[in-house]
Amino acid sequence: MSVVARAEQLQENGRDIVMMCVGQPSAPAPAAARKAATKAIAAGRIGYTSAPGIAPLRKRIARHYSEKYGHEPDPARIFVTTGSSAGCILSFLAAFEPGDRVAIPAPGYPAYRNILRALSLVPVEIQTREEDRWIITPQLLENAHCEARLAGALIANPNNPNGTMMAPDAFAALVSASKSMGLRFISDEIYHGLCWGFPETSALGLDPDAIIINSFSKYFCMTGWRIGWMIVPENMIETIDRLQQNAFICAPEISQIAALGAFDGMAELETVKLGYERNRALFLKRLPELGFRTVQPIDGAFYAYADASALCNDTADFASRLLEEAGVAVTPGLDFDSNQGSQWLRLSFCGDHERLGEGFDRIKGFLK
Amino acid sequence: MSVVARAEQLQENGRDIVMMCVGQPSAPAPAAARKAATKAIAAGRIGYTSAPGIAPLRKRIARHYSEKYGHEPDPARIFVTTGSSAGCILSFLAAFEPGDRVAIPAPGYPAYRNILRALSLVPVEIQTREEDRWIITPQLLENAHCEARLAGALIANPNNPNGTMMAPDAFAALVSASKSMGLRFISDEIYHGLCWGFPETSALGLDPDAIIINSFSKYFCMTGWRIGWMIVPENMIETIDRLQQNAFICAPEISQIAALGAFDGMAELETVKLGYERNRALFLKRLPELGFRTVQPIDGAFYAYADASALCNDTADFASRLLEEAGVAVTPGLDFDSNQGSQWLRLSFCGDHERLGEGFDRIKGFLK
Repeated sequence: MSVVARAEQLQENGRDIVMMCVGQPSAPAPAAARKAATKAIAAGRIGYTSAPGIAPLRKRIARHYSEKYGHEPDPARIFVTTGSSAGCILSFLAAFEPGDRVAIPAPGYPAYRNILRALSLVPVEIQTREEDRWIITPQLLENAHCEARLAGALIANPNNPNGTMMAPDAFAALVSASKSMGLRFISDEIYHGLCWGFPETSALGLDPDAIIINSFSKYFCMTGWRIGWMIVPENMIETIDRLQQNAFICAPEISQIAALGAFDGMAELETVKLGYERNRALFLKRLPELGFRTVQPIDGAFYAYADASALCNDTADFASRLLEEAGVAVTPGLDFDSNQGSQWLRLSFCGDHERLGEGFDRIKGFLK
Repeated sequence: MSVVARAEQLQENGRDIVMMCVGQPSAPAPAAARKAATKAIAAGRIGYTSAPGIAPLRKRIARHYSEKYGHEPDPARIFVTTGSSAGCILSFLAAFEPGDRVAIPAPGYPAYRNILRALSLVPVEIQTREEDRWIITPQLLENAHCEARLAGALIANPNNPNGTMMAPDAFAALVSASKSMGLRFISDEIYHGLCWGFPETSALGLDPDAIIINSFSKYFCMTGWRIGWMIVPENMIETIDRLQQNAFICAPEISQIAALGAFDGMAELETVKLGYERNRALFLKRLPELGFRTVQPIDGAFYAYADASALCNDTADFASRLLEEAGVAVTPGLDFDSNQGSQWLRLSFCGDHERLGEGFDRIKGFLK
């Protein structure tokens, strides 16, 4: 996050910075979401909701699963959360006891590790490799479990920062292996809706004991509304309800109303997605041209994870100089992988196409 | 919360229920807040903010302290949070280690106990007594600390459910005693702005190591926006920043913008407060008439904590029958005090004046 903070500081001082460092769509929430929120604000009080969230939104999310994945969960299993952040906190508190060891991917989203630690749990980073397309295999999970007993596994598919996806059968095999080891599987599906490499697979249809975490932040372009959802196992409903009631009361009603509206904005969101596809093509072309040795296929999400070892020894230093000297903000891999990250950079392509092109031109100039 | 759930169920079935059970203003957020939010929604993307929140809001909160309490904190110490719920979570994680014992009041807000437990901390309920105006004295805190070492104390002044306040010198003495025992003092000031009995005292001016939790939910009528703030000690800024970044990312930007607007709606909020004062007078008149033996002075907040022992043996049963038979929802004291609560009821007076009058008429009929 120090890159983001420094980039914003430079922007405040009037510097023009191309932001390729944040995982935030530049598009606003769809018009239907904004309209629903505006209408609710005009209509009267925005108040507490029940802990699981407003019924129409929970039903609409259930229908979304039916339409998209062919499995319709009981809306009673759906909890509207204050972003997927709250989904992580609630799952960890409900599923684990202090000291429990939970597998997470490396490279991976750093907040997993940090939230687990903050809640007195033990993150166990499963080191994945570029040559395996950064995939956690059943074998890797089993190795970690044999070394010291795991209580659960938290897997994102597509994964941040590398944008890799598992094929549906590979994902199903991992869920199944996790289940047979007796682990609680937590499936972070926040980048669903933004997948190019493979069909999206939800853990919902694979394991009734899995916890699904999702969010309106990415596909639905609603970061600043802090709104997401979880689907929890039948026998965890009461626990999650009590935890949500006590620790959050409820997700913001204003955002719940907007999120319900967002489902009527899918055409607009598909247009936004087409923009990402264009950006993705730009990245796949320009990154190798610039000398980044390996570029992942970018199956999903809006990130390229690029090997910069031909260009520098340490991407933290590289990113810092690139920002100061060329005005391009990218994220060093160490944020996602404390072991091998110094060789890698994450570049985000959810920004404006022309600005991203400008970013690459600047990187080219900087490398000269 | 079962009373609220059952009351809502009855309402859905078409029953007319007088809600005297929820701590939620019936007024909407002030027009200035709603206008700011509507304008932001029209203007473009609602996005992530920095972890501590948008600078203008943090500055405005700092100014609020200068205007109201005569102490202006450094805005760097102010964190905008997702309601005071997030304030509790962040303080507990930053200030304590698993197993730490934290004093809280009984009767008190039940989420304190439940969040502490969820985070592997040990709530130590300090039993207060009606004859002492439900005040936690330095002596009571010391007794608990001698019995087994405390790490901190979380005090709300005014307190929920009993609406009692400490006089400024009593509050200062408690903060000072807590400090000399080496405890971390957490001051929940969520009901500031709604005080009649005593001038409001913030822990801010009393102990630089205290953590202050506050919210836009009560005085500012913004429950469903889930927005609040904390003021943290100088040497805790970095820890809270990292925790907020990882566990919440940031409070909802839409709500931050609305909250900034709310400070321009103080005249409207003072009118809402006048309505509470009228309701408070109604409660102080009608509760004794109905046979509730002792009615607290209601120094602050919008709750009456009434002794129902002359009317029933068990307020849980009484509240349940009152709801089913008379259509009035009140909260049994056991929710707030597992020890002596069965003698007490909490009645909330933040609702509509005429409806509350109707509620008392129904209680009168029910008691006959």
